[in-house]
Amino acid sequence: MYNYKMTIAYDGTLYCGWQVQPNGTSIQELIQKALKVILRCDVNATGAGRTDAGVHACAQIANFKTEEELNIFRFKHSLNGLLPHDIRILEIIPVPEEFHAQRDAVSKIYHYYITTSRIQDPFKRLYRYHVREKIDIELLHKAAKQFVGTHDFTSFSNEAHLGAASKNAVRKIMRLDLIEEQDGWRLEFEGDGFLYKMVRNIVGTMLDIAKGNRQLGEIPIMLAARDRRAAGQAAPAHGLFLIQVAYPD
Amino acid sequence: MYNYKMTIAYDGTLYCGWQVQPNGTSIQELIQKALKVILRCDVNATGAGRTDAGVHACAQIANFKTEEELNIFRFKHSLNGLLPHDIRILEIIPVPEEFHAQRDAVSKIYHYYITTSRIQDPFKRLYRYHVREKIDIELLHKAAKQFVGTHDFTSFSNEAHLGAASKNAVRKIMRLDLIEEQDGWRLEFEGDGFLYKMVRNIVGTMLDIAKGNRQLGEIPIMLAARDRRAAGQAAPAHGLFLIQVAYPD
Repeated sequence: MYNYKMTIAYDGTLYCGWQVQPNGTSIQELIQKALKVILRCDVNATGAGRTDAGVHACAQIANFKTEEELNIFRFKHSLNGLLPHDIRILEIIPVPEEFHAQRDAVSKIYHYYITTSRIQDPFKRLYRYHVREKIDIELLHKAAKQFVGTHDFTSFSNEAHLGAASKNAVRKIMRLDLIEEQDGWRLEFEGDGFLYKMVRNIVGTMLDIAKGNRQLGEIPIMLAARDRRAAGQAAPAHGLFLIQVAYPD
Repeated sequence: MYNYKMTIAYDGTLYCGWQVQPNGTSIQELIQKALKVILRCDVNATGAGRTDAGVHACAQIANFKTEEELNIFRFKHSLNGLLPHDIRILEIIPVPEEFHAQRDAVSKIYHYYITTSRIQDPFKRLYRYHVREKIDIELLHKAAKQFVGTHDFTSFSNEAHLGAASKNAVRKIMRLDLIEEQDGWRLEFEGDGFLYKMVRNIVGTMLDIAKGNRQLGEIPIMLAARDRRAAGQAAPAHGLFLIQVAYPD
């Protein structure tokens, strides 16, 4: 069996997310359909992680196995020819047969973009969360610091909705940086793994604090509660981008 | 009568263009509807220029007249509340009663964006023309130079389709600059006025030359022909942005 690793960029606006769903069109489904057209058999494309409806990716990783050895350049070209323009295969490389895009991932980087401009740039409406309320950037910085490190993120995860609440929710956030942009902020998350909706739930809670609706001191209490209801609401999907998935060398 | 000048940004993707059309939704129509909701009477919003279906604007200018004096800050806010997120009123200012957004415009700046990356960035698919063929940038520069100056642009205009072919087609292009971008080129047009589809027809012809499908020496012949059939095809709408409309001080 040959195993191939794909790097995929997509605009998530029109999709129900990465993963195949009974209702709605997913990115995985369209890629698997395109793979089937070329390879003439059912092929499973295993993604490094779910992205939700409306979430974007600059470099999602997926792998698929086939009995044929592929001309990867030509194959990538054919695949892109079959896919809509909002999904692009950026790279395909052969990997060892045991490579698994999800299990082998050691870290991921997500960026969440907020814009604080008075009037939102219409060209960014699908890619930036427009925060209309006044936010205190000092508080945003201080809140960010409290999430860095190893924590049980049960309160910031919607895994229960997936029937997976009993799973280990301890994750490590190595980095949560705030980078100033022309008309807003980019929140860079780097972690060893992220639970379902974890980035959006953290961003929503950080913004609650920066708006003055919650106190900084509540973060340790929220984390300790291990209860989704303790933390804030999720920030909207369209500000979130999966930027990088790292694997051991 | 009070006269107000609006600066408007819009993503043209979903619209049939600026101007009210029998088929399709136009930006002008939506703005006039929103004005009617607030002012409770029919209001005409006169645009500085038509933009075609799919063409974007960072700063279209329009004016409208009303018998009410407006609180412009609050009015802008209400208008944006009624408009879809892909149309934003950036500014409203009072102007003399005789100001006319179209007649008084002395120059306009349009930018046309092309991307030459192997694989198009999915986030730019609606805002950049993806040129797959190899293009000679030297030829693009040389072609640009030949369009600068005062010419009869009949061959580069689709005015005939508007039943306006007999109109004076002499226009002056003050500037046609090529600016290198991260994954392509930005063509900056500044002129005293542009005929229907003129920018796109010039870009299409320039690209024909840069791809080697037409000769540089054909440009003077095309211009002299005063016949739309002499020049190249229009470049697609989605790469074009109306950037600025200038008025006398």
